[in-house]
Amino acid sequence: MPHTDLPLAELRDCRGDVTEPDDFDPFWEQSLDQARQLAGEVTTAAAATPLTSLTVDDVTFGGFGGEPVRAWVIRSSDRPAPTVVEFVGYGGGRGNPAEHLRWASAGFTHVVMDVRGQGSAWGSGGDTPDPHGSAAAFPGFMTRGIEDPATYYYRRLIVDAVRLLDQLGTLPGVDPDRIAVTGVSQGGGIALAAAALSPTVRAVLPDVPFLCHFRRSVELATTTPYNEVARYLAVHRDRTDAVFRTLSYVDAVSFARRITVPALFSVGLMDDVVLPSTVFAAFNALAATDRRIEVYGFNGHDGGGVAHWQIQVDWLTERI
Amino acid sequence: MPHTDLPLAELRDCRGDVTEPDDFDPFWEQSLDQARQLAGEVTTAAAATPLTSLTVDDVTFGGFGGEPVRAWVIRSSDRPAPTVVEFVGYGGGRGNPAEHLRWASAGFTHVVMDVRGQGSAWGSGGDTPDPHGSAAAFPGFMTRGIEDPATYYYRRLIVDAVRLLDQLGTLPGVDPDRIAVTGVSQGGGIALAAAALSPTVRAVLPDVPFLCHFRRSVELATTTPYNEVARYLAVHRDRTDAVFRTLSYVDAVSFARRITVPALFSVGLMDDVVLPSTVFAAFNALAATDRRIEVYGFNGHDGGGVAHWQIQVDWLTERI
Amino acid sequence: MPHTDLPLAELRDCRGDVTEPDDFDPFWEQSLDQARQLAGEVTTAAAATPLTSLTVDDVTFGGFGGEPVRAWVIRSSDRPAPTVVEFVGYGGGRGNPAEHLRWASAGFTHVVMDVRGQGSAWGSGGDTPDPHGSAAAFPGFMTRGIEDPATYYYRRLIVDAVRLLDQLGTLPGVDPDRIAVTGVSQGGGIALAAAALSPTVRAVLPDVPFLCHFRRSVELATTTPYNEVARYLAVHRDRTDAVFRTLSYVDAVSFARRITVPALFSVGLMDDVVLPSTVFAAFNALAATDRRIEVYGFNGHDGGGVAHWQIQVDWLTERI
Amino acid sequence: MPHTDLPLAELRDCRGDVTEPDDFDPFWEQSLDQARQLAGEVTTAAAATPLTSLTVDDVTFGGFGGEPVRAWVIRSSDRPAPTVVEFVGYGGGRGNPAEHLRWASAGFTHVVMDVRGQGSAWGSGGDTPDPHGSAAAFPGFMTRGIEDPATYYYRRLIVDAVRLLDQLGTLPGVDPDRIAVTGVSQGGGIALAAAALSPTVRAVLPDVPFLCHFRRSVELATTTPYNEVARYLAVHRDRTDAVFRTLSYVDAVSFARRITVPALFSVGLMDDVVLPSTVFAAFNALAATDRRIEVYGFNGHDGGGVAHWQIQVDWLTERI
Amino acid sequence: MPHTDLPLAELRDCRGDVTEPDDFDPFWEQSLDQARQLAGEVTTAAAATPLTSLTVDDVTFGGFGGEPVRAWVIRSSDRPAPTVVEFVGYGGGRGNPAEHLRWASAGFTHVVMDVRGQGSAWGSGGDTPDPHGSAAAFPGFMTRGIEDPATYYYRRLIVDAVRLLDQLGTLPGVDPDRIAVTGVSQGGGIALAAAALSPTVRAVLPDVPFLCHFRRSVELATTTPYNEVARYLAVHRDRTDAVFRTLSYVDAVSFARRITVPALFSVGLMDDVVLPSTVFAAFNALAATDRRIEVYGFNGHDGGGVAHWQIQVDWLTERI
Amino acid sequence: MPHTDLPLAELRDCRGDVTEPDDFDPFWEQSLDQARQLAGEVTTAAAATPLTSLTVDDVTFGGFGGEPVRAWVIRSSDRPAPTVVEFVGYGGGRGNPAEHLRWASAGFTHVVMDVRGQGSAWGSGGDTPDPHGSAAAFPGFMTRGIEDPATYYYRRLIVDAVRLLDQLGTLPGVDPDRIAVTGVSQGGGIALAAAALSPTVRAVLPDVPFLCHFRRSVELATTTPYNEVARYLAVHRDRTDAVFRTLSYVDAVSFARRITVPALFSVGLMDDVVLPSTVFAAFNALAATDRRIEVYGFNGHDGGGVAHWQIQVDWLTERI
Repeated sequence: MPHTDLPLAELRDCRGDVTEPDDFDPFWEQSLDQARQLAGEVTTAAAATPLTSLTVDDVTFGGFGGEPVRAWVIRSSDRPAPTVVEFVGYGGGRGNPAEHLRWASAGFTHVVMDVRGQGSAWGSGGDTPDPHGSAAAFPGFMTRGIEDPATYYYRRLIVDAVRLLDQLGTLPGVDPDRIAVTGVSQGGGIALAAAALSPTVRAVLPDVPFLCHFRRSVELATTTPYNEVARYLAVHRDRTDAVFRTLSYVDAVSFARRITVPALFSVGLMDDVVLPSTVFAAFNALAATDRRIEVYGFNGHDGGGVAHWQIQVDWLTERI
Repeated sequence: MPHTDLPLAELRDCRGDVTEPDDFDPFWEQSLDQARQLAGEVTTAAAATPLTSLTVDDVTFGGFGGEPVRAWVIRSSDRPAPTVVEFVGYGGGRGNPAEHLRWASAGFTHVVMDVRGQGSAWGSGGDTPDPHGSAAAFPGFMTRGIEDPATYYYRRLIVDAVRLLDQLGTLPGVDPDRIAVTGVSQGGGIALAAAALSPTVRAVLPDVPFLCHFRRSVELATTTPYNEVARYLAVHRDRTDAVFRTLSYVDAVSFARRITVPALFSVGLMDDVVLPSTVFAAFNALAATDRRIEVYGFNGHDGGGVAHWQIQVDWLTERI
Repeated sequence: MPHTDLPLAELRDCRGDVTEPDDFDPFWEQSLDQARQLAGEVTTAAAATPLTSLTVDDVTFGGFGGEPVRAWVIRSSDRPAPTVVEFVGYGGGRGNPAEHLRWASAGFTHVVMDVRGQGSAWGSGGDTPDPHGSAAAFPGFMTRGIEDPATYYYRRLIVDAVRLLDQLGTLPGVDPDRIAVTGVSQGGGIALAAAALSPTVRAVLPDVPFLCHFRRSVELATTTPYNEVARYLAVHRDRTDAVFRTLSYVDAVSFARRITVPALFSVGLMDDVVLPSTVFAAFNALAATDRRIEVYGFNGHDGGGVAHWQIQVDWLTERI
Repeated sequence: MPHTDLPLAELRDCRGDVTEPDDFDPFWEQSLDQARQLAGEVTTAAAATPLTSLTVDDVTFGGFGGEPVRAWVIRSSDRPAPTVVEFVGYGGGRGNPAEHLRWASAGFTHVVMDVRGQGSAWGSGGDTPDPHGSAAAFPGFMTRGIEDPATYYYRRLIVDAVRLLDQLGTLPGVDPDRIAVTGVSQGGGIALAAAALSPTVRAVLPDVPFLCHFRRSVELATTTPYNEVARYLAVHRDRTDAVFRTLSYVDAVSFARRITVPALFSVGLMDDVVLPSTVFAAFNALAATDRRIEVYGFNGHDGGGVAHWQIQVDWLTERI
Repeated sequence: MPHTDLPLAELRDCRGDVTEPDDFDPFWEQSLDQARQLAGEVTTAAAATPLTSLTVDDVTFGGFGGEPVRAWVIRSSDRPAPTVVEFVGYGGGRGNPAEHLRWASAGFTHVVMDVRGQGSAWGSGGDTPDPHGSAAAFPGFMTRGIEDPATYYYRRLIVDAVRLLDQLGTLPGVDPDRIAVTGVSQGGGIALAAAALSPTVRAVLPDVPFLCHFRRSVELATTTPYNEVARYLAVHRDRTDAVFRTLSYVDAVSFARRITVPALFSVGLMDDVVLPSTVFAAFNALAATDRRIEVYGFNGHDGGGVAHWQIQVDWLTERI
Repeated sequence: MPHTDLPLAELRDCRGDVTEPDDFDPFWEQSLDQARQLAGEVTTAAAATPLTSLTVDDVTFGGFGGEPVRAWVIRSSDRPAPTVVEFVGYGGGRGNPAEHLRWASAGFTHVVMDVRGQGSAWGSGGDTPDPHGSAAAFPGFMTRGIEDPATYYYRRLIVDAVRLLDQLGTLPGVDPDRIAVTGVSQGGGIALAAAALSPTVRAVLPDVPFLCHFRRSVELATTTPYNEVARYLAVHRDRTDAVFRTLSYVDAVSFARRITVPALFSVGLMDDVVLPSTVFAAFNALAATDRRIEVYGFNGHDGGGVAHWQIQVDWLTERI
């Protein structure tokens, strides 16, 4: 795989021409308000697991529409600890807690949110339904409800994420003043949205984040999931404007403009799933001044791997 | 593409070991009863189209759950005519009436049913939502609600088809005593289900039908859509039995065993989407004695094309 | 598939540096003169078809060298009607009349010309031989006789097209004052040639037209048919100039410079068979002032499909 | 690439069920008689080449229809020497004499026949036209004129080969009593035809020969050139019998039944262009008792390469 | 991906016809004797890592030729615990300890051996050189030194593994009476070799093991690494016997015949890297009576993933 | 395959920003000095071959570390003749002398050097071991010993080449005052290195040369062998600087700056293995004024083939 985008020097200046709808902020305020009014209780139960050095709790909280969403809380101690909330990549679910041992083994409390309706394309599965149908859509999640921002799938997923952050303080091992959000690909995009919408977040660490600069991403996509939108528009030739209007409500470039907490990004210059220019467009849009992007010159969508995690641990330890 | 399955001589004897659940018939009786109780009215409106030699009506009827489902009625005359009801292939929708001119130009009344939730992967789109969410599913429609026969996507689609047949008599140009069902791939599988479940049907003409002999289809699938199930099971390793139990309620081999009306099948020996052995398994299971299968030795999932349509016209004209 | 060419803003200005041979016009005059001297009679016979709402005639006319070329005439009425002459894409033939129902069902007389020697790669076949051998050529039609403009395959095919237009007035249902030419891909390129060379044509509607800006097309081709020329030149390394000289006689950019009738183009920005810049090069070269190009931003070589056909019907109805 | 066919033990018994037309022998007698009546003179000219240790002559002889066909004669001595006549693989031509140095450098006179119409897909080209048009055909040479044995492309190519052998005695350096034929792939198939039809041949050495057991080859082909026939039949669904009848006149299994001279075959068990079972079908059909097949277990269509050539030299030296 | 091998019922009986060299046992005795004579000391140092709930030691021991080989020891306690020794898959290295947290977090001591010379194709790298050159070899490790069992790469790797087991008792946290070996793919093959050659091993848990039934694996390989051998033999056509003789010294089917400790295998029926029949050939060859194989019907070379690990924990806990 | 790099006009100016280490020249002086001190004797033996018009000697000489390296000397005469020394492409070996007949048949003495450790990926093999192990490396030769210039594989291969040139005068048929070096791909890169480092060379003829402008080549590589480096760096994310430092000692752009003898290059504009811009970077860096580059506009890594060889013969004959 060769470099997939502009030369690095040009990427560093890449901003992208991402326009926002006038009602971007009210849209999200109302979306969150609705969900908060429907919230039920958070339930927590010990998870069945062979792990002995870590404690795992199986959490259910009310997300979008008050609908039950699952998460794991994994930790090495009963005391409140700095907490990392992770969102998962496209097609994955929260899986098995034994797949999420790093952060907790390093002394953090690790919360892994499930992804409604997903969790069946890789890994070991998800446990959260998405009880919403859709109009005619391309196979996948990218075009479900895309005819209107109000019905769009990612509105629900982002609300889930913010609602989890709302209720973190009730979870075991969480220090509510030391909360960071992270995630790879789709998880990185959701982390950016959550960092913009939730006052609880103290740091954001998106890896090769998805959901940035949709127009460029969809026009130049060579693979899933961005090309789901392209293929939808190849059929619905008359809906281009409506589709990009909907996407403008969830574009992580717009969320980045609202992020003031410290941010550590990663990007792979050989990434053909998420183009580097779209990651830089979000990074360069940050309102935060404490920001850093690790560039992996010979990696694709795998980004920085465990080497980047070690950088994240050090960076985060200095900040929360 | 080479031949994708057994030699033709062995295919002709291929039956497949498809087991049925004990409550197969009650399951469908109850499913149809529920839908019939929820039925609303059928509405019909003239479609906007540049066509002048044919008349096109845009129909909405109550399908599964009484939910609105769309269809086109295309015809060259106002008098009741022999009627061909067509179901569409995976990912497609009813599209534009100008894509469905053959049967009507040959004097038949042609009814094209939309496919709930689909209609965005090829062609020119669909207009029918599927207002049902699902548990964690693989991108696509094959695994939506697959955890239980009651929630499975194809239960809803098959009920839509039977409900359309229930209400055909109210549509313009339809002779209710001369009704045939047809379709390619997914449409062929639905046609088989409809022919088994609806007493209205006088002939069935499935082309390269999908939904037959699921176990073999999923184990040997090299491409979508059957491999959606394989990929789901690669993640949900513990759900194999539950998944194949659900699929046993919609296996077209079981529907074929209940079909007594004349049947004309087609099969392509180079088909890598629908394996020829699975088509023969359904064909050989037919209760009908008036049956014929056209074998296209050098075609894949394209089957017999317009050449086969001409055979269908002659065959059907002799029968209804 | 991502966008395959320059950004749209640059495409709109794309002209291409296509040079013409000095004897371009005399070459075609002489080619047509020769064919006209060899012309035989046009014969017409009713086609065997199950269609009832349309009439189909099977036509044979004298094309290049007076050689017999086949066509269908499909119509819904016996009266002279506005007539659309269609040329077919690479590898296809006139096929079965039941594959060509749209224009006639909308009240036009539709003439579909067969493609000499082709008609065996997709669809349901062709019926016209190309009784000319060739020097050593790459498999396909692009390099047959390419050593000289006089022997080149596309000279023969273009002459066939113009000769059909010459003789249209004798065909049933044709209004000789209301004739348009159209076609997809190769058919669009031939339509452009025909519109430049035949005074009969009143409008031209090429879709994703092939045969435009050969140098760029061959140098950047990733797939058939343009890469047939590249592969030929990979073997015949010393014939680059001769080959591009031959191609300069059939480049649709040069034909476009000679077209003064109204033109409606389509282009797909994800087209990897015909690069968008080569379509714009022809569009921008038109001598016509009444011109329009529909841009399909998320389609490939499928272009605008039936949605574009509806635009064509309206556009054409306003003009002929 | 894995093994592409049956296990070796089964291959060794593979015969194939290849039926012959009743008039197979008269068909070829008449074909050769016609060509012999049209024969012109053989012309020979020194070729321009930088080679100094070998002599190269550029030959033109009358092939099918008396049409001029080119060949190289390459040799290291002026005295008559054992002579190897080579036919070239699909898409190639006689190329440049500097590509054919092995046999002559080992003391043989080497004659390389050009391939009419081909010579433009690989290598450095051909110089022989095929001045025959065809009915609608798939791109390539496999389906040109396939509607009738009399018009089929391979009839012409095989007649060329036999006519070259007829006239070998007049060429420089050829010992007419010590003539062998060889070739790779298509060249191997032509060598088998020539060995059956020409009394001049004293030994035949086909490598991974093409043209054997057409029905199996076409039904199981995954790539060119056999799949040209499959794709033609995918369009012309009604011509299967006619096509295989034509092919039965050029099937090398039938030629093998008529070969009594010593034969040395090669086969690659990972060959996906020419299936091993079709090579064994020809090998096992030989009337010759002095026969041998070298099996290359881990090679594909490259077969035995230069290692096999060394075996050929030894084998041939013992025989002619 | 479809099922890649025989139907499951036939797989269960699959034994494979794997012959052993007469001196198989002396060969390994001598290989191990030599290495034991060259052994140096084992050194252990605390690893730099952000992990806090686990202890990680960086170990260097003398492997083949006494050459330094690296390993990680990861554990949650200072007391001797049941110990799992893991060998890594082809192209990987011991990587970063944060990639190996499962076994230690479940209370086991986990030893991860590095792979000499590998560790650069995936993951985060290896730290062990392979200070041995080779004769001409195909890129990769499969054919290095393959001309003789004494020089073959896998002889060195297997000796490394046994030598690590020899010296386990000196490592922190290891209970020398409760040692199991495991590994995925190449790691599973090495685990089988180690279980046969080291008396220390009390249980063996190979996942989708590589190195089994080489003849079948190489003849039917569609991908790396087995096809490295096929491609080597495609060049070195005369070395087939020598190569398979060398491979017979490292075939895990022969090692399995010598294994009497309990064994838990996994296999994926859609595995195209390691064919299921070759896994069953090893499984069915076990001398052990306490054996079990988990069949993952819809997985490929990913096998059972974390779900299988949970089975392994339970199975192993019952046994050591 | 389309053009793979910049437009030709820009390529002609392409220089590349290739930096050299300060000790580039001393590094090579010392490397050669060491090897010269270890040199043994050159041995020559007649090769077993069926060739009769040419003489073949099998040569062994001391290369890097005095280690034995093999070569063929092929010639048509016993008298000293102008001599072409050829280096072989990646993965190949000296093979069989019957594969190298052109230059000798044209009156040159042709020396073909084997490639240590390679010779097993294509062709008919190599006979020279590389008796040096390496640290963890990606499968292939590009990353062996890449952690340090002193241990890097290509240091050894280049020293072999220069040492062969040192000792050419002792070989039969060589005129030591008329020596040229050539090679395709890797062989072209080695030829450039040899022309810079050996005073014996009178002309250099690299075809589509590899090893030029490593940074660009690795960043934009889509295939082997350059992508071996990219994949190594995808694992060893912290070694980018060290790796490119090592590569800077073998970059053919730096060698080109030191070449003053006449040079004839070839380049293919559709080359996706060696990007045209990297070839032009070396060509434009030449210190030689007598230089020429043949541009093959429609060829890939096959470059100019035998047509280019004829140009080489003429060009070389005018110069040595």
